[in-house]
Amino acid sequence: MKVAVMGYGTVGSGVVEVIESHSEIIARRTGGEPLEVKYILDLRDFPDDPHQEAFTKDFNDILNDPEVKIVAETMGGVNPAFDFTMKLLGAGKSVVTSNKELVAQKGLELLEQAEKSNANYLFEASVGGGIPIIRPMTQCLAANNIEGIAGILNGTTNFILTKMIEENMSFEAALKLAQDNGYAEKDPTADIEGHDACRKVCILASLAFGKHVYPNQVEAEGIKNITLEDVAYIQSANGVIKLLGQIKYINENKIAAFVSPAVVYNGSQLASVRDVFNAILVRGDAVGDVCFYGRGAGKLPTASAVVADIVDCAKHIFRKKIFGWGAGDEDYVVDYKAELEMPFYVRAKMSEAQAKATFGVVKYLSRPGQPSDEVAFITDYMTENELKAKLEGAEVLNVIKVTNY
Amino acid sequence: MKVAVMGYGTVGSGVVEVIESHSEIIARRTGGEPLEVKYILDLRDFPDDPHQEAFTKDFNDILNDPEVKIVAETMGGVNPAFDFTMKLLGAGKSVVTSNKELVAQKGLELLEQAEKSNANYLFEASVGGGIPIIRPMTQCLAANNIEGIAGILNGTTNFILTKMIEENMSFEAALKLAQDNGYAEKDPTADIEGHDACRKVCILASLAFGKHVYPNQVEAEGIKNITLEDVAYIQSANGVIKLLGQIKYINENKIAAFVSPAVVYNGSQLASVRDVFNAILVRGDAVGDVCFYGRGAGKLPTASAVVADIVDCAKHIFRKKIFGWGAGDEDYVVDYKAELEMPFYVRAKMSEAQAKATFGVVKYLSRPGQPSDEVAFITDYMTENELKAKLEGAEVLNVIKVTNY
Repeated sequence: MKVAVMGYGTVGSGVVEVIESHSEIIARRTGGEPLEVKYILDLRDFPDDPHQEAFTKDFNDILNDPEVKIVAETMGGVNPAFDFTMKLLGAGKSVVTSNKELVAQKGLELLEQAEKSNANYLFEASVGGGIPIIRPMTQCLAANNIEGIAGILNGTTNFILTKMIEENMSFEAALKLAQDNGYAEKDPTADIEGHDACRKVCILASLAFGKHVYPNQVEAEGIKNITLEDVAYIQSANGVIKLLGQIKYINENKIAAFVSPAVVYNGSQLASVRDVFNAILVRGDAVGDVCFYGRGAGKLPTASAVVADIVDCAKHIFRKKIFGWGAGDEDYVVDYKAELEMPFYVRAKMSEAQAKATFGVVKYLSRPGQPSDEVAFITDYMTENELKAKLEGAEVLNVIKVTNY
Repeated sequence: MKVAVMGYGTVGSGVVEVIESHSEIIARRTGGEPLEVKYILDLRDFPDDPHQEAFTKDFNDILNDPEVKIVAETMGGVNPAFDFTMKLLGAGKSVVTSNKELVAQKGLELLEQAEKSNANYLFEASVGGGIPIIRPMTQCLAANNIEGIAGILNGTTNFILTKMIEENMSFEAALKLAQDNGYAEKDPTADIEGHDACRKVCILASLAFGKHVYPNQVEAEGIKNITLEDVAYIQSANGVIKLLGQIKYINENKIAAFVSPAVVYNGSQLASVRDVFNAILVRGDAVGDVCFYGRGAGKLPTASAVVADIVDCAKHIFRKKIFGWGAGDEDYVVDYKAELEMPFYVRAKMSEAQAKATFGVVKYLSRPGQPSDEVAFITDYMTENELKAKLEGAEVLNVIKVTNY
């Protein structure tokens, strides 16, 4: 079966590599059908690459070739990936993608187009890289009402936090190390501000609850304000700070969804996820907690998920798989700061007496070298707005949500 | 769509409960088709149960009813489940099961019959209870050569080991507590001797590498010989003892597969799996390590996996899914004691000088209250047969494999 790969960056070149290096197992999984990369679309030249005969700069070569029935879109970004994918699906070709930005922004339209054309649009690699999550969530947990999802969805920030927690490295030093190791981009904004995790939250929420959630509906708070002092206090409470995407089902017409640093207590499966690894915990009403762990990024892990989707398309070439969701609406994602109650970690310049006067009995934390005018504690359950009201006028150093995952 | 449930024990009654309590989400997942339990087969009477009109003691009621296209087999044991399943598949009905003993012993014949009849035989619930593993391994990891698998596959023994590790409880006391909590049977042999885990290893190995592995090919060593002294020594090495099923790909015609207690170092995702939870770690050549975690047993978790398989059958009623494997042979599973090299934990009555004379430089462990004539250490890599030869004549107190997962 002839396939095309659009975008020959890290993931795209990984896709070509995996197809070539795993031809035997792929043929076994497709039921005998080998895959062959007929086109590689990229505007750049790769003069030393052995796939010269496959390179093209013209998208129409792929669109108009009836031999090509499956296309891997590994370009990233919304444009021109959206336009290309719509045209391919419209022509009845199946498309698989690792492009989380595109799925989060335009998934609904793309899935509708796929449905209309009786083609498949699969996106396992767009969340959690190589970690199987899309199929397990939709198929294996089909007999569960999903109550919530929490995930460590960004490897770069998890690497930075791991270095801060385990090696007492400052945020700046850990970010630099991540950049030196190639885990973080020169401009690390999308990672450390939580935008990357936000897109994955949108995809997970859309899939779990059947209505499209857009990135602008999901508030994202990054990890820039986390200090080693916070890390030490939370360690004293037997917890760690992780950047979590959290999704909570409220009712058929309402969910909460947000990205933020969160205190995770040791004993949670999420607490032991270190370095660049990702994990997604799904809470079902029948199955309880299940957790999926693995490499959330990287050339071969992500490429192997893209190729698995190609294999699935090859097996289902004449039949539509049911993966998708419907339209959402503006009010679907609630203002979680007003509606969700949770405990909070608070670090402030105040006395324990002041904290007690404001919050009642709280759990005080301690750290080596704690100044006498600094207090850190875990509050009782309340909304973030209630917390903010209570803290008005106080000299607050940091506030971090405490998760129940 | 009408379904039948055979065996109304814990899992079977859970299946009926999940089908009834989750009708909305199930209908959404099947694309609109609700499920209805038309028959419940059990030889016992359940006079207070509200499903009186569904009960039957005659298997032929199900076999001969053309309305019933999907049957859940939750009877357990090989007989008469095997005979019933063969007849149902032969009649073109799809069967889903939680019966690990049956799949491990007779999977090949049942899958061949399903293939012949163009029916489905699905068994997600037979490994890891509610944890999605069968589909993720076959579909999502389709573009990987799987190098190995390690799993905590039995909740009862993991509960016992957790109590020994975290609460210094003796094996006997922990087993009693497991029985009091309903986690262990009155006769706990199948769990604590590793037979239950062994069946799951057979299913995972068959699925991962395409050839049937039978329980009598997989050596199982239980946890009865684990003492609190061993737990303490291994804790000093920053590790924990887990009952692991391990599978290792050697080549197309050879694998290793065994169940035994194993030292797992903290930092492994398997080390943090506590209480009755299970986890399965799959190592792929492209994706690296992925790990699946959740409840490996229990009424609703297992039932939810059975119902997910029913849903999948309902969606694929006229088309065969490709899940299966071919015949194995006697020599397919190697004698791992002769062929696999690994480090070992050894506890013995000997001096460090004697240990050094025999093993060269080793890593010595310590524990509170260690007698002066007792030594515990981790060896270098060697086969178990080499280890046994070196230890001949020594007063060995315990030997535990060290895993590289």
